[in-house]
Amino acid sequence: MFATLKFAALLLALVVCRAAQDYDYNDAEMDEEPTDSQYGSLWPLPQKVQISTVVFKLSGASFHIIDAKESSSGASCILLQNAYRRYDEYIFTSSRKQGQNKSKKALASDISELQVWITSADSECDSYPSVTSDESYELSVDSPVAVLKAPKVWGALRGLETFSQLVYKDEYGAKSINRTDIHDFPRFAHRGLLLDTSRHFLPIKVILANLEAMAWNKFNVFHWHIVDDPSFPYLSRTFPQLSQQGAYHPYTHVYTPSDVKMIIEFARLRGIRVVPEFDTPGHTQSWGKGQKDLLTPCYSGASPSGSFGPVNPILNTTYDFMSMFFKEVSTVFPDAYVHLGGDEVDFSCWKSNPDIQKFMEQQGFGTDYSKLESFYIQRLLDIVTTTNKGYMIWQEVFDNGVKLKSDTVVHVWMGNKVEEELQKVTEAGFTTILSAPWYLDYISYGQDWQKYYRAEPLGFKGTDAQKKLVIGGEACLWGEYVDATNLTPRLWPRASAVGERLWSDRDVRNLNDAYSRLAKHRCRMVQRGIPAEPLFTGYCAHEYKGV
Amino acid sequence: MFATLKFAALLLALVVCRAAQDYDYNDAEMDEEPTDSQYGSLWPLPQKVQISTVVFKLSGASFHIIDAKESSSGASCILLQNAYRRYDEYIFTSSRKQGQNKSKKALASDISELQVWITSADSECDSYPSVTSDESYELSVDSPVAVLKAPKVWGALRGLETFSQLVYKDEYGAKSINRTDIHDFPRFAHRGLLLDTSRHFLPIKVILANLEAMAWNKFNVFHWHIVDDPSFPYLSRTFPQLSQQGAYHPYTHVYTPSDVKMIIEFARLRGIRVVPEFDTPGHTQSWGKGQKDLLTPCYSGASPSGSFGPVNPILNTTYDFMSMFFKEVSTVFPDAYVHLGGDEVDFSCWKSNPDIQKFMEQQGFGTDYSKLESFYIQRLLDIVTTTNKGYMIWQEVFDNGVKLKSDTVVHVWMGNKVEEELQKVTEAGFTTILSAPWYLDYISYGQDWQKYYRAEPLGFKGTDAQKKLVIGGEACLWGEYVDATNLTPRLWPRASAVGERLWSDRDVRNLNDAYSRLAKHRCRMVQRGIPAEPLFTGYCAHEYKGV
Repeated sequence: MFATLKFAALLLALVVCRAAQDYDYNDAEMDEEPTDSQYGSLWPLPQKVQISTVVFKLSGASFHIIDAKESSSGASCILLQNAYRRYDEYIFTSSRKQGQNKSKKALASDISELQVWITSADSECDSYPSVTSDESYELSVDSPVAVLKAPKVWGALRGLETFSQLVYKDEYGAKSINRTDIHDFPRFAHRGLLLDTSRHFLPIKVILANLEAMAWNKFNVFHWHIVDDPSFPYLSRTFPQLSQQGAYHPYTHVYTPSDVKMIIEFARLRGIRVVPEFDTPGHTQSWGKGQKDLLTPCYSGASPSGSFGPVNPILNTTYDFMSMFFKEVSTVFPDAYVHLGGDEVDFSCWKSNPDIQKFMEQQGFGTDYSKLESFYIQRLLDIVTTTNKGYMIWQEVFDNGVKLKSDTVVHVWMGNKVEEELQKVTEAGFTTILSAPWYLDYISYGQDWQKYYRAEPLGFKGTDAQKKLVIGGEACLWGEYVDATNLTPRLWPRASAVGERLWSDRDVRNLNDAYSRLAKHRCRMVQRGIPAEPLFTGYCAHEYKGV
Repeated sequence: MFATLKFAALLLALVVCRAAQDYDYNDAEMDEEPTDSQYGSLWPLPQKVQISTVVFKLSGASFHIIDAKESSSGASCILLQNAYRRYDEYIFTSSRKQGQNKSKKALASDISELQVWITSADSECDSYPSVTSDESYELSVDSPVAVLKAPKVWGALRGLETFSQLVYKDEYGAKSINRTDIHDFPRFAHRGLLLDTSRHFLPIKVILANLEAMAWNKFNVFHWHIVDDPSFPYLSRTFPQLSQQGAYHPYTHVYTPSDVKMIIEFARLRGIRVVPEFDTPGHTQSWGKGQKDLLTPCYSGASPSGSFGPVNPILNTTYDFMSMFFKEVSTVFPDAYVHLGGDEVDFSCWKSNPDIQKFMEQQGFGTDYSKLESFYIQRLLDIVTTTNKGYMIWQEVFDNGVKLKSDTVVHVWMGNKVEEELQKVTEAGFTTILSAPWYLDYISYGQDWQKYYRAEPLGFKGTDAQKKLVIGGEACLWGEYVDATNLTPRLWPRASAVGERLWSDRDVRNLNDAYSRLAKHRCRMVQRGIPAEPLFTGYCAHEYKGV
């Protein structure tokens, strides 16, 4: 159905053509004509899958997704009822021709129901997902009923997606599904995506569409890098002047409290956490516009130059501001964690400022400005701790020896010495997540999804205890060159590669099998309305209809 | 309005951040905070522009674009009437806040009309544009009327676009335009864009949207690489089995004769030629599915391997087929030129085939298969000549010494020895177009538009007569990794850089000035409905509304 052409021939033509253009990307690992995967269009691949050749039919008229009688969750669980409606729509108006399986031995009989059975007493229907949420599920597709069992609603959400991926149209166009048994759970608890709404503002609609796509790929953390140097679109109730002055536009380019609430609820309904990042003391130029004296005045010789550096760490007013600000953040964002940034602090402005110099002397920091940075971060962490939040920080904070709470998540992003860093962080006993191999803003020609797919978070040397501290990773799409016009096709299906790496078993890494499933998965995303770009030459039965 | 942040600071932050990710892209040429261009949002920059500080207003209620009394073209010219409607819409529903000029000295008075005056006796209203079409125009914006003078409708179209780019909203939201005099004409006659509808099928809607964007960027040739190895979406009346068997799908993934007609007329109304490419003898795998014996059977030892190579050059049936096929093509496509391809012929299959070997011997070609290739191409060119078409060919055909008609356009695409090739081709007296620096399918991180912008088609050593033979160039967006989901943002505004290089004066190459104008131009494209991607961090007053 996909890629009707000789793949090897195409690849050859490609390489010949590209050589003349000084092309040095080597696609050689996928050197055979891709064959259909035995797992159809499943993505990410579940932990244990048994697909039989027995085929059942699903009638759009009679088939329903319903609560199992034994389920601890009933019709009052809005999260599940919403999910049933969503997946009913996907199955009966969208997912055609995906994962088609031509072998058909048994007589076709009907599946009339998918029963969803929440097995634990507390379904967590009205809770927020967390890093310890149970996302496991068991799916048994048989006639006359299919059963999806999960301890919590989070597993049910994942299982519904999997069920929808099993449905295909047979050669007559009839909705079909094979007898299947799946036992599934994520390899890593933290499977995140970072979007940056400061370098370019992203309209709500774009964020929601990508949360939806995240759910299809079993991501469960939206890391919202909400503010940064270029703009401050977060509308703070306590300090409204921050966005009033710091956003690109105070009305059209901000996220109001109700926008934020809507995004958090939309994400919750899909089992996705929203972890906001308020990065300090660097990356804060936009903060300075609405908050006087927050940033360090830079000096040119003996007098202020008029420009500003990182947050001013030597004023009490700074910490008063941070206390009030993060108190608000702790109530607006329900997640147990907030990301505090702490990356890429430029010392030149601090060095130029005579008041800072004096403070350094008083504190006995000598000329080691990383000590000043640590001084600031330490106080910030103490402030955030009083709000009863855990925190995530970029790796520099750990590297600089700041004292961290034991539940801190250290975020590894630097491209050099990744494995040493993972070793060090876990040796020190901290949980960690990995982003270094998954900076999706670095685009390049060709099938770069393979590079993301091959990355292995546990490839470093360490004890089992150390490996257990790696709780997952995040794909990052920084916003320098990305806005509503190009974000979605640039993200999908490239992020899908990260999605499978973080969900599926470590041994799931066959590129040909992945290509076959991912090509179908991307066509399914297109059909569900997300303009996911192609992996390579080929087509979808239903092409993208927008422009 | 755009880029409110300190640009230099941002750039620094970017470079620091990227170093950690082994980033080696150097943006250093644009090292200053960009200032607004004195030319507002004009793109591509006209040849001669004088913008005064005197500001006039345009009232949406009273302003009209009309035929000048003296014009040789009246209300019966559908091309112009359509263009008036289009630009009226752009000016009064879309183009806000672009090219705003804060200096405002004179009293504002109104411009009530833009009079369009076709000055030559034959307006060419009902003709097709050609490589010799006159696209020059003079635009005088003054009160009470602005006048656009052009010898032909083609210049009027270009001038209408320029006029629309001069309109902006003042600080009260009033549509405004400065007193302006422009005398404009293209530097190169052939300013093309290649789209590939074989590697991925592009829905009509996508093609039309991009023709529209081409007109905004003063492109005038749509090079339609319509078929290739992967699929044959062109529905031929003479050989319907070609698409029946060779398209990805015989109904949903084909261009019918009426689709083709519509695309050609849509393009004509915007002064854009449609030059189809039917590339042979290589790149023809999809042709072989519907046309028996057209391709060369490859051999594995003494017996056919089951796979096929290039067009079989030793059979008379091949030339009978080509005669009939290109006779149809010559009637379906009105342009004076057809692109015959001729690139990247792989000899291995020909070498394997005993019949071909025998033919080589008979012809005294020895083992030089480029002679066989030339033998084929020579006959093909003769066939196409009988249809009264000129032809374009990729550079290999020239390189291999095939005898070409004097009006042949040689298309230079190979990335190595570009200047030598231009020298050789023009020394031999052939007209040529350049694509080598403008393969937009090769994406990379950062502001690669600058690379496209800096390329200079006349940078090679040669006489004035040789330079005159370079009639232009084409931006190419090959389709391996591009379909409806990602084509448009990947193309714009990167292709705009090529648009200005091919239209504006050779000396127009200041990157800061270009950045300022292009950033506004891209926001204008976004507002007109095309998801053109951002150049860098910043925002548009009206962000893209789709997903």
